[in-house]
Amino acid sequence: MRIKDELKQEAIFKATIKLVNKIGFVSSSVSKIAKEANVSPATIYIYYKNKEDLLVSTFLRIKQQLGTAMLKNFDESKPIRDVFRTIWFNSFNFIQINPDLINYVEQFQNSPYYDLIDIKAAESSFEPVLMMIKKGIDQKIIKDVSLDMIGAFIYYPIMILSNPRRTRNIKLDKKTIEKAFQLAWDAIKL
Amino acid sequence: MRIKDELKQEAIFKATIKLVNKIGFVSSSVSKIAKEANVSPATIYIYYKNKEDLLVSTFLRIKQQLGTAMLKNFDESKPIRDVFRTIWFNSFNFIQINPDLINYVEQFQNSPYYDLIDIKAAESSFEPVLMMIKKGIDQKIIKDVSLDMIGAFIYYPIMILSNPRRTRNIKLDKKTIEKAFQLAWDAIKL
Repeated sequence: MRIKDELKQEAIFKATIKLVNKIGFVSSSVSKIAKEANVSPATIYIYYKNKEDLLVSTFLRIKQQLGTAMLKNFDESKPIRDVFRTIWFNSFNFIQINPDLINYVEQFQNSPYYDLIDIKAAESSFEPVLMMIKKGIDQKIIKDVSLDMIGAFIYYPIMILSNPRRTRNIKLDKKTIEKAFQLAWDAIKL
Repeated sequence: MRIKDELKQEAIFKATIKLVNKIGFVSSSVSKIAKEANVSPATIYIYYKNKEDLLVSTFLRIKQQLGTAMLKNFDESKPIRDVFRTIWFNSFNFIQINPDLINYVEQFQNSPYYDLIDIKAAESSFEPVLMMIKKGIDQKIIKDVSLDMIGAFIYYPIMILSNPRRTRNIKLDKKTIEKAFQLAWDAIKL
């Protein structure tokens, strides 16, 4: 019974992303998402209060997946540049192999739904990354700027570079990705 | 008569952006855009072959506006960092005061319509910027990386930082914007 529940929730998660990416937040309704997921609208209302709850939960689940992926092989005993490098490559891989999830996140963050989000809660899965950045600032290795600004120079370039539609003239080989990391590190290092 | 034409084209331009930003590319039809612009669909077909032509032309027109804005006070006789600084602040201002145009461009670049674009043509209005970057690379002032990569570390951080929804924790005062410029310059300088 529980496995069946999980399969249904998984189907709803995937259908939400697929439909929102295709027709946008405004046109996506619970009934259309139910149809896409091959479940009844009533099934969606077992798990989610309403459309808003479904969209917000989907966003938070993706953020959590990203946070988990970023922290693979996280070892804070290493030098900060090395820790940062590991996180950077983890992020690059996750973003590159999950364009649909990233597209949903992007659309969400540009929509009024994003105003409903408690950012602290949304970023709880990134806590070790945030701590590492703070440590880097304290040790005068990383520039003393806000986390939003660091994100703007780390996360978004990755997002663009890992999207083949956006970088048709770049061959994304190991050397290129290593160069991109160098630019990111130079931006934030003191 | 010509002024009337220009007013109509302006109304179509604005309506296209407004509608696409609201309901997306898939749901936006020529008839809905006509209604939003308060013209007949036949009027749109005077200027544009079809929906695709309208969407592509709107994209190219915005890119051209951005190119013109970026090149304000462009003086290539100045040191490269100064030229770059002027372009960076011009871009920041344009992106900050035109969120609707930027939102349209972003959506467009994530849509299959973008695959139709001849990038060289789309970037013709940025030619002096591209020349300046090439000069910087030749003079070993800027890192020898592709223009796409430089764009990923210049344009996208600006886009995020200038969007108040995305940076709720940043106060966008002069000092903060100057710091952001410093990060961008450190990323690309050799």
